[in-house]
Formats: sequence, C-alpha cells, structure tokens
Amino acid sequence: MTQLHVAEPADYPVLLLFGHVDGNTPAGVSHSLESIKGCPNPDQPIPCAMTSNTSVRLARRPVGLPVADDFRIDTSEVPTPGPGQVLVRVTLISLDPAMRGWLDDRPSYLPPIGLDEVIRAGGVGEVVASSDPRFPVGSMVQGNTGVQEYAVLDASGLTRVDPALGTASMYLGVLGMTGMTAYFGLFEHGRPRAGDTVLVSAAAGAVGSIAGQLARINGCRVVGVAGGPDKCTYVTDGLGFDAAVDYKVDSLRAAISNACPNGIDVYFDNVGGAVLNAALANLSMHARIVICGAISQYNAEQATPGPSNYMALLVRRATMTGFLVFDHAAEFRTARRRLAQWVADGQLTAPETLVPGSVADFHSVFLRLFTGDNVGKLILDISA
Amino acid sequence: MTQLHVAEPADYPVLLLFGHVDGNTPAGVSHSLESIKGCPNPDQPIPCAMTSNTSVRLARRPVGLPVADDFRIDTSEVPTPGPGQVLVRVTLISLDPAMRGWLDDRPSYLPPIGLDEVIRAGGVGEVVASSDPRFPVGSMVQGNTGVQEYAVLDASGLTRVDPALGTASMYLGVLGMTGMTAYFGLFEHGRPRAGDTVLVSAAAGAVGSIAGQLARINGCRVVGVAGGPDKCTYVTDGLGFDAAVDYKVDSLRAAISNACPNGIDVYFDNVGGAVLNAALANLSMHARIVICGAISQYNAEQATPGPSNYMALLVRRATMTGFLVFDHAAEFRTARRRLAQWVADGQLTAPETLVPGSVADFHSVFLRLFTGDNVGKLILDISA
Repeated sequence: MTQLHVAEPADYPVLLLFGHVDGNTPAGVSHSLESIKGCPNPDQPIPCAMTSNTSVRLARRPVGLPVADDFRIDTSEVPTPGPGQVLVRVTLISLDPAMRGWLDDRPSYLPPIGLDEVIRAGGVGEVVASSDPRFPVGSMVQGNTGVQEYAVLDASGLTRVDPALGTASMYLGVLGMTGMTAYFGLFEHGRPRAGDTVLVSAAAGAVGSIAGQLARINGCRVVGVAGGPDKCTYVTDGLGFDAAVDYKVDSLRAAISNACPNGIDVYFDNVGGAVLNAALANLSMHARIVICGAISQYNAEQATPGPSNYMALLVRRATMTGFLVFDHAAEFRTARRRLAQWVADGQLTAPETLVPGSVADFHSVFLRLFTGDNVGKLILDISA
Repeated sequence: MTQLHVAEPADYPVLLLFGHVDGNTPAGVSHSLESIKGCPNPDQPIPCAMTSNTSVRLARRPVGLPVADDFRIDTSEVPTPGPGQVLVRVTLISLDPAMRGWLDDRPSYLPPIGLDEVIRAGGVGEVVASSDPRFPVGSMVQGNTGVQEYAVLDASGLTRVDPALGTASMYLGVLGMTGMTAYFGLFEHGRPRAGDTVLVSAAAGAVGSIAGQLARINGCRVVGVAGGPDKCTYVTDGLGFDAAVDYKVDSLRAAISNACPNGIDVYFDNVGGAVLNAALANLSMHARIVICGAISQYNAEQATPGPSNYMALLVRRATMTGFLVFDHAAEFRTARRRLAQWVADGQLTAPETLVPGSVADFHSVFLRLFTGDNVGKLILDISA
C-alpha cells in the first residue's frame, strides 16, 4: 500500500487519495480499473483502491513506419500529483499524425519524445486526485495525458469537459486540438471569403473533415481530396463538400483542375507531396496555402523532395503559411463555443473512430492513420 | 523612303516623322544610328533620315542554358507608331533572369514569348516620334522596348526619365523595375522591422544588392549570400551588408546559421534551390520568406525538386510569399522618389554593369546572368 498525498496549497481543500500498486499485475498488460471505478463518491476525498499505471514508452526511434518493437509497454506505480497538479485516470487517447514527428530526433516545435519517455498524446480522463478546485475529483478533463492509464498533469494545462458543449471524445476532436487546428488554420491563416474555392486534403480525416465543413459554413465552395471512392462519397454525401477528388487517380492535377474550374483560393494542406504539387498547379490569384501537416511524408526514410511547383507562389502572388494551433490558445474558448454551436445546429458533423482497447494497442491503432483505415478523429478508447 | 505618319488624336499636336529603310544593311548586323542622332532639333517634328530596325527574335525554345541559335537577328523597317503611341530609339536594354522564364512555353504571369517574336525586355530610349505631349521627341523614356533598336510603344506604358532623379540606366536599375522589385518585395512582403535579421540571396545581383541595402536603411541586420570571396567582399565592403555567406561553401546551412545567430526573420530569395533550403533550416519564429526569383532553377532541364525543408514553415509559423512587382504599379512613383533620395544621400549604392554592344550581342551578354559574371544591374548598352 502506497499513500499518495496531495500537498495542500493555501486556498485549496485537502484532497487525499489512497491507492495501492497491484504487485500482481504483469508488466506489459493493461487492465481496466474496476477498483477506481468502484469508488462510491468520486467527489469526496476518500481512500480508494488503486492499481498500477501501464504506459507506452519510446523504446527506440522508428525508421519509416513505426513497428511494434519501437515501443515498450511499462507498468509502474501510479504517479503522485504535487501542488497545482491533478491525477487523471485516462479514458480516451487522441491519435494524431503529428505524433509521428515527435518520435524522430530532430528539432521541431516541440522537443522530440525522449527514449524511454511516455509517448506524448492528448487525452481525456477523469480526475481521481486534485488540489485544484476547478478540477474536482470525478470531473472529466482534457490535457496532455500521454499514452498511459494514469497521468499527473498541471492543472494549468487542463481543459474541463463541459457536457453542455459536448462529449468527452468531442474534446479530443471537434472541441479539442483537432477542431482548434481546423478553425484557426482555416479562418486565421486561410482567410476564406464567401464564394472562394477551398481545397482540403485528407478531407475525410480528423482536421480535414472539419476544416472543409467550416469553409462550407463560411459560404465557400469546398472540394476535398481523399483516398478512394468510399471516402470521396463520404466527403460529399456525409460531410456536404461540393466535390471530392480521389488522390489515387492518374492525373491529380487535372482532376483538381476539373473540380476547381476557377482555381483554388485557399488550400488547406494536411498531406504534402503530390497533392501539394497538384494544388500549386491550380492556384488562383492571391491564393493562400495553409500548411497544417504533411502526412504523406512523416514516415519517409529519406529527405522528401518538397513542392517542385513552389514558384507558382510567384506566378499567382500566393502565400504558403505554416501555423501551430498552440499559438491561438487565447482564443480557444471562443472557437470551442462556436464549434459546439455548429454541431448542435446540425451544420457541422464531427466524425470519430473510437477503437476500444488498452494502451498496449497503441501501435496497431496508431498505424491506421497512415494506412487510410479511419475516418475522422481516431481515438483509442481505454475506458472499459 | 517610307513615310511614317503618326495619326492625330484630338488634343495632340501633329507629329510627323520621315525615315527610310536602309536596304544595304545586312541582316544580323546592328549599327549606330548617326542619321537620327544627327537630327538638328529633336524637339521639332521634322523629317529625319532613319535607318532599319534590328531586333532579336526567338528562333526556338531553349533547352537548358540558351544557345546562340535559339535566337534570330532580324532586320526590318522601323515600325510606325499609331495613335497614343511613340516611337523610341532604344539605347539601353535591361537583362533580367526572369526573361529566361518567358522563353519557355509554359503558363506564367506573362504569356510566353512567341516563336519569332521580339525578345521581351525593359529598355530605355529616346523618343523619335510621338503623339503624346507627355513624351515629346527627344525625351528619354523607360518602357517595355524589347531587344531591338526601335520600338513602338503605347504612351500609357512609358515612364519619363527624369534627370533630376537619376540617369537613364538608373531607370532600368534602382529607379526601374529592379529597384521597384527590391522595394516592394522587401517592404510590402518581407515586412522587416528594425532589428530583424534579413537574409538576401544573389546579394551582389541587381535586385539583391538593393533589397539588402534597403533592409540596412530600415535598421535591420543584413546578411547576403553571394558566389565566391570577391562578391562576398563587395557585398560587405561595397554595399554595407553586415555579413556575407559564400554559397559555394560546403555547409551552407551551417554558414548561414553562423551568420544569423538569432535566425532569419526575412529571407529575400532570388535563387531558390540549395540556398532556399538552407534558409528554411535557419528561420526564426514568424519568419517571412519572399519569393522574388529562383535563378538557380531557370535553366533546369528537368523538374526541380523544390524546397524539401518547407515544413520548417510550420515549425517556425513562417510564411512564404510570391509577388510580382507589377501589382504595385500604383506606388511606383512614391518608391522611385524615395530610392532616388537614398541614392542622392549616399545611403544607397546602385551597382550597374553596362556592356556596350549591339542587339546582336544579346545572347552572350544575357548569359552573364547565369554564369555569375556580373555585379548589380546588367544592361546592354546599344547607344553608341
């Protein structure tokens, strides 16, 4: 039995939580947390049985598409929150293409995930110990949980899941970083005007599906690029895009030209590579290209060639802008309210693919991002 | 003897000019125009002997670096100006990297030069027939003359050379499209702030030499990229850049990093290719890349690879913008006055390489742009 004691900041109630590390849990095995879920009243600081924490850690840096041995399943004690922190039992884990970049040892907008560190990921979970009254025990929060069952997180980095706005999974999707990325990428950097033609790649994906619908709500003509006829049908019939282009066709450049007869005013790019080149070949004057991601290149083992058509920027007096959603944090609350309202109004569909499993399933579920197997937001659901 | 008659618009004085086509002039030979230069009073509409017009035309589309046989020297009658037009005896011809692009049969910001058409070029010359009182006979004008001895030009497209502001050659360089390109590319699209680090490629070239000096005048730290130690010395000692980087070094990326320890806030790119990639690897946050040209790629016979580092735009929340100087025509007059003042004040040096010759020398002089043989504005001087 290990006593977890949350220190008492001046103005906070004393919250104590007792748990134990289950010495019988074999390493590498995840399990549901019945003992926690069985707590009679999660809003009260009560002693409560607690099990071990299983996490997924970086065993070595992947070369190309990650393989199972690049990751290590670890079981350790449930961590102890300090002052200003909360302990969260993770229920949903966000799987995002950007995570692939964090596995590489190269400078980027965040430091690489260190060897043996828990895989960085957004997540949603239930507060099981707290020293911050904004996040009482039992409340649901969204934060940078990582791929693990329990996370100690700074309260300052958490967002409370407000059931009036949406479900827990929506706080990883349309109301979370995914929705924020679509919202700020499109509106702040794409600057679409009603009547503009907006092209979105990975249009059936988490960010693309939302970005395209926001452009539609904004009065734009929206064309999605997706892989295969089923996804293309979903993009038009399910998400209400005006047209869809299958990137697996022979002449992508011509297909985009046909779908965008007046040229592209805004290109919201999630994929890079051949689609970016084909979009560059179809820009209208003063077009804005928003670089949100480049999923076609994240697993490349050699330097990728870059957009050979980039001089189209000059010919079309166009702009290519990279952005990161974190820079817009001051406006997240406003964006979240608007996105929730559009969902409530039925104007915005937020597709999700929830895969039930344990953290040990991380690798196989993560790969779905790169094989085109999922639609919308991909989430590993470890709540069971 | 051919009579050239300029029709008489309602409010214009009647201007008549008589000339003759010199049947003895062999094709492919240029000559000075003593008969014109001998006119007793160029401000008067007088009959005046006139010779033939030698021009350089596109014989076939170049593959890679243009060869002499891609061009054809043509001799024809001096053309006749119509209403609203003037006839200009060309004295100086601007040679610009962009001209290489116009020789290719691909869509761009201007239509390709057609086969057998006169090579498109800016030029300066003397008005020898005019129906527009703003451009009287004898005045010097700058316009799109093409590579030929005489050009009929719409008065609406002409700029009068004002000796109070600068010389005729300056109207092709610092006071012409070259200076305008540097001015608007840097100020409008680079948006430099005092204290910013500004990197300029082709820093000893026509546009780069001015763009970098404007950044210096703007209070920036300016680093130039140029080819070889002599040009680098010129960039720092002659043009007052804070530092210069020789792009022929082994590790350009590291060299730029050393010269820009705080990263690049504005990159004014004239060359593309490896220099653009190295700059992308050294961006500071919210950097602005201005795509002015890509001279390293204009003679490429295959598709060029594009900037493989372009995802640095996302990491650094940076922007890559293409622009064309023509879009800023409404502000040319203001820019020209400022540039002339900086030259007059001794703050701005406008290097020029004037090569005396005839239009038949076009090909060999044009190639100097691609062999790195010139400094500053390259001009073919056919005034003699």
